[in-house]
Amino acid sequence: MPGAGTDKTKTWVAAAGPIVILVEPQLGDNIGTTARAMANFGLSRLRLVKPRDGWPNPRAYVAASGADRILDEATLHDTVEAAIADLTYVLATTARAHDQAKPVIGPEEAARLMAPRIAAGEAVGVVFGRERYGLENEEVALADAIVTFPVNPAFASLNLAQAVALVSYEWFKRTTDETLPFAMPDKSRPAPKQQLRAFFASIERELETVEFFRPAEKRETM
Amino acid sequence: MPGAGTDKTKTWVAAAGPIVILVEPQLGDNIGTTARAMANFGLSRLRLVKPRDGWPNPRAYVAASGADRILDEATLHDTVEAAIADLTYVLATTARAHDQAKPVIGPEEAARLMAPRIAAGEAVGVVFGRERYGLENEEVALADAIVTFPVNPAFASLNLAQAVALVSYEWFKRTTDETLPFAMPDKSRPAPKQQLRAFFASIERELETVEFFRPAEKRETM
Repeated sequence: MPGAGTDKTKTWVAAAGPIVILVEPQLGDNIGTTARAMANFGLSRLRLVKPRDGWPNPRAYVAASGADRILDEATLHDTVEAAIADLTYVLATTARAHDQAKPVIGPEEAARLMAPRIAAGEAVGVVFGRERYGLENEEVALADAIVTFPVNPAFASLNLAQAVALVSYEWFKRTTDETLPFAMPDKSRPAPKQQLRAFFASIERELETVEFFRPAEKRETM
Repeated sequence: MPGAGTDKTKTWVAAAGPIVILVEPQLGDNIGTTARAMANFGLSRLRLVKPRDGWPNPRAYVAASGADRILDEATLHDTVEAAIADLTYVLATTARAHDQAKPVIGPEEAARLMAPRIAAGEAVGVVFGRERYGLENEEVALADAIVTFPVNPAFASLNLAQAVALVSYEWFKRTTDETLPFAMPDKSRPAPKQQLRAFFASIERELETVEFFRPAEKRETM
């Protein structure tokens, strides 16, 4: 819903958040949709490790639906080590068990663990692997914990930007206390019971008029 | 991560879930990525109201990354009314306030409200609007409640499949009690403190050997 969503009159949420690191992303489209998902949930810092088709990539800009600013400020790195060198806490996302002695958590728990560190001014990052085969064992080994997703085991393959969106969503939900952009309009006070009874009585009268209550013995049930 | 994710040896989660209804989706790609997101989170029933480019749409199959079964079984409808006629509880997703006296909830609350109804065998649906401008007022009016997303107000435009993914994710998370597909391997028991002290002492000896602790007065701090 692009037309409905982007609103330059509203303040961009600029609170500190985790840095998103994409390792050898193959499709420019996925870099763009990642940026869009980050923007949706108030994240802004993107790092790219050797994107397959080079950088900048025009397809990323098309897919970002206006989140250009994140792409403009994305930084390029040669290795995962270089991309996380300044970070104090790193999470690696993966759909496969890597048989490493690291805590395995879901995105909600990831947000819970990152929050105090980011609040304390630490630089925290979440690493996402290649579309086709995710992260290598030695890349996962660099992380403090593994993030995976509660998914249908028979169809566990998440789109890259979807994975970024879930981590970002849980982050945003936690840091904003799940504040929604709007609420039910508070137009009129709830009707007092007396008024409600009068309303039902008037409906009943109308239905009598049109002989709705037939046969007569079913009247009470109806 | 398509290669890593789809596993025909694993059981498809076949528990009952909400029906996803896309109203006049414009891009076949988005119908496909919607099906993929549904499959990721164990949903299977898709209804399409007047997809712009007709149906079936080959682009949807390309984008579905193997969730063909959902597309094969998708049903076509002429109006939202027709698509929800057999449902007892309907949620409408929207990024904009529609100024209607309906509860406005987030995706987690949506899952909470749908769960007992679906467990009781009711047919429940979630309606998603067009990519460009969402749902019309009269379409929202057909729903029991409005679902919206906790998003950055300055960049509130979610991709259609992302919106479907968030609702599906919260549904799956709730119904599976956030079970993750794998956990940390339990290879060895945690080391007893004595062993741990001996380990640190041996590291200290090694560091003494290479004269790491210099200057001497900083030894304790280090």
